[in-house]
Amino acid sequence: GERKAKAERMFELMDGFLKNDPISLQKDILHHVEYTVARSRFSFDDFEAYQALAHSVRDRLIERWHDTQMHFKRKDPKRIYFLSLEFLMGRSLSNSVINLGIRDQYADALSQLGFEFEVLAEQEGDAALGNGGLARLSACQMESLATLDYPAVGYGLRYQYGLFRQVIVDGFQHEQPDYWLNFGNPWEIERVHVTYPVKFYGTVMEESLQEEKCKVWVPGEVVEAVAYDNPIPGYETRNTINLRLWAAKPSDQHNMESYNTGDYIDAVVNRQRAENISSILYPDDRSYQGKELRLKQQYFFVSASVQDIIRRFKDTHSNFDDFPEKVALHLNDTHPSLAIAEVMRVLVDEEHLGWNRAWDIICKLFSFTTHTVSPEGLEKIPVDLLGSLLPRHLQIIYDINFNFVEELKNRIGLDYDRLARMSIVEEGAVKSIRMANLSILCSHSVNGVSRVHSEMLKKKLFKDFYELWPDKFQYKTNGATQRRWIVVSNPSLCALISKWLGTEAWVRDVDLLIGLREHAANLELHQEWKMVKKVNKIRLAEYIEAMSGLKVSLDAMFDVQTKRIHEYKRQLLNILGIIHRYDCIKNMDNKDRMKVVPRVCIVGGKAAPGYETAKKIIKLCHAVAEKINNDRDVGDLLKLVFIPDYNVSVAELVIPGADLSQHISTAGHEASGTGSMKFLMNGCLLLATEDGSTTEIMEEIGEDNIFLFGAKVHEVSALREKGSALRVPLQFSRVVRMVRDGYFGFKDYFKSLCDDIEGGNDYYLLGADFTSYVEAQAAADKAFVDQERWTQMSILCTAGCFFFALASHHQQTDDHNLLIRELH
Amino acid sequence: GERKAKAERMFELMDGFLKNDPISLQKDILHHVEYTVARSRFSFDDFEAYQALAHSVRDRLIERWHDTQMHFKRKDPKRIYFLSLEFLMGRSLSNSVINLGIRDQYADALSQLGFEFEVLAEQEGDAALGNGGLARLSACQMESLATLDYPAVGYGLRYQYGLFRQVIVDGFQHEQPDYWLNFGNPWEIERVHVTYPVKFYGTVMEESLQEEKCKVWVPGEVVEAVAYDNPIPGYETRNTINLRLWAAKPSDQHNMESYNTGDYIDAVVNRQRAENISSILYPDDRSYQGKELRLKQQYFFVSASVQDIIRRFKDTHSNFDDFPEKVALHLNDTHPSLAIAEVMRVLVDEEHLGWNRAWDIICKLFSFTTHTVSPEGLEKIPVDLLGSLLPRHLQIIYDINFNFVEELKNRIGLDYDRLARMSIVEEGAVKSIRMANLSILCSHSVNGVSRVHSEMLKKKLFKDFYELWPDKFQYKTNGATQRRWIVVSNPSLCALISKWLGTEAWVRDVDLLIGLREHAANLELHQEWKMVKKVNKIRLAEYIEAMSGLKVSLDAMFDVQTKRIHEYKRQLLNILGIIHRYDCIKNMDNKDRMKVVPRVCIVGGKAAPGYETAKKIIKLCHAVAEKINNDRDVGDLLKLVFIPDYNVSVAELVIPGADLSQHISTAGHEASGTGSMKFLMNGCLLLATEDGSTTEIMEEIGEDNIFLFGAKVHEVSALREKGSALRVPLQFSRVVRMVRDGYFGFKDYFKSLCDDIEGGNDYYLLGADFTSYVEAQAAADKAFVDQERWTQMSILCTAGCFFFALASHHQQTDDHNLLIRELH
Ligand SMILES: Cc1ncc(COP(=O)(O)O)c(C=O)c1O
Ligand SMILES: Cc1ncc(COP(=O)(O)O)c(C=O)c1O
Repeated sequence: GERKAKAERMFELMDGFLKNDPISLQKDILHHVEYTVARSRFSFDDFEAYQALAHSVRDRLIERWHDTQMHFKRKDPKRIYFLSLEFLMGRSLSNSVINLGIRDQYADALSQLGFEFEVLAEQEGDAALGNGGLARLSACQMESLATLDYPAVGYGLRYQYGLFRQVIVDGFQHEQPDYWLNFGNPWEIERVHVTYPVKFYGTVMEESLQEEKCKVWVPGEVVEAVAYDNPIPGYETRNTINLRLWAAKPSDQHNMESYNTGDYIDAVVNRQRAENISSILYPDDRSYQGKELRLKQQYFFVSASVQDIIRRFKDTHSNFDDFPEKVALHLNDTHPSLAIAEVMRVLVDEEHLGWNRAWDIICKLFSFTTHTVSPEGLEKIPVDLLGSLLPRHLQIIYDINFNFVEELKNRIGLDYDRLARMSIVEEGAVKSIRMANLSILCSHSVNGVSRVHSEMLKKKLFKDFYELWPDKFQYKTNGATQRRWIVVSNPSLCALISKWLGTEAWVRDVDLLIGLREHAANLELHQEWKMVKKVNKIRLAEYIEAMSGLKVSLDAMFDVQTKRIHEYKRQLLNILGIIHRYDCIKNMDNKDRMKVVPRVCIVGGKAAPGYETAKKIIKLCHAVAEKINNDRDVGDLLKLVFIPDYNVSVAELVIPGADLSQHISTAGHEASGTGSMKFLMNGCLLLATEDGSTTEIMEEIGEDNIFLFGAKVHEVSALREKGSALRVPLQFSRVVRMVRDGYFGFKDYFKSLCDDIEGGNDYYLLGADFTSYVEAQAAADKAFVDQERWTQMSILCTAGCFFFALASHHQQTDDHNLLIRELH
Repeated sequence: GERKAKAERMFELMDGFLKNDPISLQKDILHHVEYTVARSRFSFDDFEAYQALAHSVRDRLIERWHDTQMHFKRKDPKRIYFLSLEFLMGRSLSNSVINLGIRDQYADALSQLGFEFEVLAEQEGDAALGNGGLARLSACQMESLATLDYPAVGYGLRYQYGLFRQVIVDGFQHEQPDYWLNFGNPWEIERVHVTYPVKFYGTVMEESLQEEKCKVWVPGEVVEAVAYDNPIPGYETRNTINLRLWAAKPSDQHNMESYNTGDYIDAVVNRQRAENISSILYPDDRSYQGKELRLKQQYFFVSASVQDIIRRFKDTHSNFDDFPEKVALHLNDTHPSLAIAEVMRVLVDEEHLGWNRAWDIICKLFSFTTHTVSPEGLEKIPVDLLGSLLPRHLQIIYDINFNFVEELKNRIGLDYDRLARMSIVEEGAVKSIRMANLSILCSHSVNGVSRVHSEMLKKKLFKDFYELWPDKFQYKTNGATQRRWIVVSNPSLCALISKWLGTEAWVRDVDLLIGLREHAANLELHQEWKMVKKVNKIRLAEYIEAMSGLKVSLDAMFDVQTKRIHEYKRQLLNILGIIHRYDCIKNMDNKDRMKVVPRVCIVGGKAAPGYETAKKIIKLCHAVAEKINNDRDVGDLLKLVFIPDYNVSVAELVIPGADLSQHISTAGHEASGTGSMKFLMNGCLLLATEDGSTTEIMEEIGEDNIFLFGAKVHEVSALREKGSALRVPLQFSRVVRMVRDGYFGFKDYFKSLCDDIEGGNDYYLLGADFTSYVEAQAAADKAFVDQERWTQMSILCTAGCFFFALASHHQQTDDHNLLIRELH
C-alpha cells in the first residue's frame, strides 16, 4: 500500500534516463559547475569546466552501471573476478564518452559554451596505479570485458599515491610523489557502506564447535577496507562493469586505551599509520619482495575482495554447492595469490565446510597468469614474515603443501630433488613460500603471456609442473584495445580507417582491420595515411618543443623507445647506437651527410627509484642529447630527446606520432611486451628482437614488414657462456670508449655503465647484438627513403594488429572461464 | 563578442534559483539518490536518504553562499575574521533548513516519499571539532553573525578526527577516535584550488633588496593547506557566510631523493606523517601546552588564514593603506595569537612595508577574547620550541618585546618586578613566550567573557596591563543562539512561545522574549508549558531507556549536570549530594519517604583522556548509580543516570527535558559558562554558584528564580587558607566515608578521590559548600512541589534568557569592530 504508492511516486519523478541532446548536456554541465564544483557560472576556468564535464559524464556512467548491476543480479551468471594489484587506467574522459557514444554531442555542447572538448580533456590527470605493461594490460582487459558483455568485476587497490612522477633535473631523474587525488576524482564512487574488516597478526586458537574442532584466528590488528567503484563502460553496449578498488580507512570499531593526553594523540597517530596500507604503490616490479608493507597490501586487497565475492554469492545462494559454477577468480601474477589461502580459510574456518569439500571447490576457482621469465623473478614470501602477519594462512599453506607432497610422492615416487623443487615451501637460509608453486597447484589453468613465454614456462621455469599437468598450461598473448589506442588517442587515423573500410564496425570487431590489407598499395590511401601521420608528428613535435625548447624536423624519422628503463630492455643499446650514428655523421664529408636519413630519436621511461643503473642510463641519454643537439655539424640529421614522466597520457601522444619504435630486449627476457602492439596499431614500424610477442607479430605482419635483429632465445645462453671470449665489434668498443673517456662528461659516474657491458660482464649482450642492431637501423633508413614502401609497411602494421586486440576471438577460444559471455 | 554570446547562453540556461515546492524538492532528492549517492532509486536506506537530502540542502546553501560572496566582493566592507582553533558545530541539517525557511516544505516533500524528516535528521553525525564551551560559542557566534548580516568569515582547522567518542565499559570511560568524515560530509565544499604553502623550521637569512637589508626565512618543511568551506546560513536573510577550515595535504612541490626503493617508500610515508598536522583535535584544553604538534596546528591554521586574508585584500587594493579599515581579526583565546607575528612577518619581510608602518597597522587589527581565569591557564610557548619551528616569528616577537619594554620603562620607570611580569618573554627554568601578553599588547580590545571574569582580569590576571591601558579592557558575556537551542532543538516550546507572543519575530529579535513575563502567571499558559516540558521529558526518558534499559518516572524532577568533567566543575559535589540523598532515604520510615520529591539525576560529560581524577569521578558516578538504581527501598524516589558521549546532539536532547540543571563550579573558576544559558532558554531552573555568567543571569531573572548556594568569589581564598582547620559538616564526612569504606565498591580506586577533598586538600571547597548545596537542593525540592510556582519560575527563565542570546543588541554596543553591519 504505502510503500507502493511511494515507489510509484518515484517512478513518476524519474522516469527517464538523462538526455544527451546538446541543451541537456549544457544544462547538466552548468549545473555541476554551480552545485558540484561550487563555482559561479560566471567565473570558472578550464579545470573547473573539466570537473563539471566529468561529473556530467559520471552521471551517465552511473545510470548504466546500475542497470548492469541489476541485470547481473537478476541473471546470476558466472562472474569473472579479475584480481590485480595494478591498473594503469590513465585518463577516463575521452574513453568514457566514446564508449557511451556521446563524444560528438559533448563536443558540440561545449563549443556552443565557448569551450573545446580537447582542451578540457587535457585537464585530466592520469590514474597511474601501476608500473607498466602488466598494469596497462589489466586496464585494457577491463575495457574489453565490458565491451564484450562479460559479467566481469575487477578488484585492486586504491593507492593514494600512484606511480611517482619523474622529474628531470640536470639530466638526473628525481621522484615526486603522485598525489593524484589532490584535485578530486570524479570517476570513482565512494561506497562508504561497502566496508570489510581486514585482519592481521595475532594468533590461531582451537575451538570446539558442535563436537568438531576448528581454528579461530584472533587478530592483533584490524583495518577497514572501503570500496571505491570505478565504472568501466563497454563500447556500443550498455554493459558497464565495475572496477572496485579498496582503500584502507580508520575503523571505529576499536577502543583505545590512553592514560594521558600524549598517549591518546600517539594512539590515534599510530592507528593512522597502520591505515597507510593503501597509500603507496611500490614503484618497482621486483624490489618489494619480503617487505611487510607490500605483503599487507596484497592481503588487504585480497581479503576485502574475497569477503565481497562471498557476500555477493551468499546473497542469492544458501550453500556453497554452486560456488564454482558462479565464481571464477583470475590471478594477475602471484600478487593476489594469497586469495587461494584466504578462500580456503573462509570456507574451512568460517563456513565450516570441512577441508576436503573446501579443497574441491578451490581447485575449480582459480586461473593464473604469470608474467615472469626467470626463476629470480618469482615471488617468495619468507615464512617468518607470513607467519607473523597471517598465522592462519601459513598453517593452511603448510597443510596444502603436505597433501600435495604426499600426492606427488605417489605419482612421481621419491625423487627428492624434484619434490624439493616442486614443494611450495622452499628450504634454505631463508625459508620461504613459493607463491607461483601455490598458484600453479591450485589453478585449473596457468597462462603465459606469449607463445615464446609459454615455451619457456613449459621447458624451464615450470617444467616439473608441466610434465605433471600438461593440460593446465596455456598461453594468451597479451593485447591492447584498439578503442583506447586508436579511437581515443588517434582520432584522425580512426576516421581514415572507417573511411577506407566503409564502416565503423572495426571499433567493436577488430578483425575487420584485415580489410586494410587490400588497400595497402593504394596510392590515394598512401597520401591520406601520410597526412594522418604528419598531423600526429606535428602534435608530438609541438609537445617536444613546449617541453624542451627543441625544434625537431618533421621530415625526420621519429624513432621512439618509450617503456620502463631496464637493463634487459636495453635502452643503453639504443643510446650507444645513437652515439655510433653521431660518430659516423661527424666523420662524414658534406656529400655523404646529404644522404643521411634524418632522425629524431625519442627515449622515455621511468627508472625505479632504487635502480641505480637505470638512473645512469637516463643521465647518459641526457648527456648524449646535450652534445648532439648542440652540434652544428649535425643539425637536423640527428636529434635526441628524452620525454620525461612517461605515462599513459604521454603514450597516447607519442605512439601515434612515431614512425619507428624499438623493442629490443635481450631475447628471452620480455615475457610479452604490449607497447609494441600499440605502436603497431598506429602504423608505426617496429625494430625489434625476437622476444616475447614479437615472434607472433612477425608471423602476423610478415618478416618483410618488421626490422628484426639480434640473438634468438635459444642462442642467448651459448653467447653468455663465452664470457670475455666473446668478440665484440670494434665500433661497439669505440662508442663505449667515448663514454668512458668522458666525451659526454660525467666520466666517473658513467664508468660502471661501461664496466657492465665490457670484459665478459655483458649479461644482456649489447656487444654481441650491436652489429646486427646497426644493420637493422640501416635497413630502416633505407626503407624510409622509399616512402611508398614505408607507407605500405605502415598500413600493413595496422592491418595486422587485429591479432593482438584484446579479447578478440583469437584470444578467447582457449579459456572456457572467460567464455561465460552474457549478452543483453 | 564570443565571450558575451557564451555568457548569455549560460544565463539562459540557468536563469533561476532552485525551486522549493515539494515536487522540485522531491526531484532534487531523488536525483541525488541516483547520481550523488549513486544508489538505485528503488533501494536506498535512511542514511542514504539523509545523504541525498543533505546534498539537496547543500545546493541551496551554495546558491546563497555565492550571492553573499559576490555581494561582499562588490561592497568591500570591513570584514570580521574570526580565528578559532575549535568550532563545535554539531549537526547541520535542521539548522540549515530552518534558517533557509524551508523546513516545512522539506518535511512535506519527504513524507510524500514515505520518509520522515526527523528520522533522517537523526542519521547525521556530529561535527565535533572542539572540546566544549569555547568551541560551541564559536559555532553560535558564526550563526548569529550570519543572521545579523555581518560580513564575517570564520577560520579554523578541519580535524580528521574530532573530539574522541566516549564509550563506557563497566563504568569506566574509554576513548574511541571520532573519524567523523568516514561517511562523507555534505556540508563542506572542498576547494582544491584554494591552497597555500605553510612553512616550518629552517633558518632566517639576511638579504639585500634595493639597498635595504631584509630577512628571508628559508623553511625546512612545507605543508600545503587546502580550504574546506562550510556555508553558515543566517536566519531570514540570504546572508550565508563562510567558515573556512584548513586541512593539511601532501604538497607536490617538492622532490624527494631516494636512492633505493625502501627509501622512496619511507620518504613518502614520512611526508605523509608531516602532513598529519590537521588530523587530530587535542582532547584537553590544557595539557597540549609545549607540544610541538599543537604548535604546528596553531601556526598552520594561522598562516593559511593570514595568506587568504591578505590575498583577498590585495585582490582589490594596491597598497596597505586601507588594511585596518578593511580587516578586523578576532582571536578566540590565545590559540591563534601567532597571527600577530605572522601578519607582522608578512608585512615586513614579504610586503616590505618597514617595521614602523607594519606595527602601526598591527595595532589596529586585532581584538582578543580570553577564556582563562588563572595564571596557570595562560598559554606559554617554550622559546626553544618556537625558535626551532618558527625561527623568524621568534625574532619578531623578541623585537616587539624589546620595543614594548623600552616604551614601558618610559611610562612606568624601572620597576623591574612589574617589567618582568609584563614582558612577553618569561625568564626562568624554561624560557617562554607569554601569548596572552603578546595578545594584550597588540590588540585594541581585550575581552572577558562575563562581568565576574572581567573583574578578575582587571584586578588580578592582567592588573598591570589594565592600569596601563584601562580602555582596552571590556567584557562581553558569552551567549547562545535561540535558533539553535530553542527553534531547532525544542520545536514544541518554539511553537508555544510564538503562540503566546503572537509572533515568530522573536526568532530573529530575541528581546521579544521578555514579552513572556506578562503571561508568567497565566494558568492556561502553565498547562501548555507543562505539556511541552512533559513531551521533552518523555523523549529524554525514552532515550535513557533505550541506552541503559533504565525506566525513569516522568513525575520525578529531572536534575541534570552535563558538561566536561573537571574538578572545578564539581561533578563530585553533585554525586556526594546524591549519596547523601540516598542515605537519607534509606534512613527514613515509609511515611517520610512519601514526602520525598522523586528525582532522576542525570550526569554526562567527557573526561580528557589523560585526566585521571575526572575519569574516577565518572566511575564513581556509575558505581553509585549501580547501587541506587538497584535498591528496592528507593524505587522511583531516586535514580542516577550517566549519559555517555555528551556532545551537541545529546545536549539538544537533554537540555529541553531538564527540570533543574546544575552549574556548581567553585566560585572564581568558571569564566562564563554557556551551558546554563541553554538550559535557561528551555525553561529549566538553575541550581548554581555565583560564578561566571551566573551573577548576570541572577540579576536578569531575579534571585527568587534561581537556587544559589556556596562561597562567593571573594570568599574563596580565605576559605582555602584555612586548610585543614576548615570545619566540614558531619554529613559531608559521612558520605565521603561511605565511598572510602567501599560502600560502592572499588575502594582502592576511589581512595585518591576521597583524599583530594579531605584533610586540608579540598582545593575546590566541596566540604565548605556542602551544607549550602544540600540546602539549595532542598529549596529546589520545595519549589518543585508547588507546581504553579515552579512553572512560573520556568517561564521567567525563558523570558529572561534574551539577555544571553548572542549578538543581541546588548552584546553589540561596546565593540565597534563588530559593528560594521552590512544589510543587504
Ligand atoms: C605508461 C606505459 N608504461 C609501460 C607500458 C608498457 O610498454 P612495454 O610493453 O613496451 O614495456 C605501456 C604500454 O602501453 C604504457 O602505456
Ligand atoms: C557538547 C557541549 N559540551 C560543553 C558545553 C559547555 O557547557 P558548560 O558551559 O556548562 O560547561 C556545551 C554547551 O552547549 C555543549 O553543547
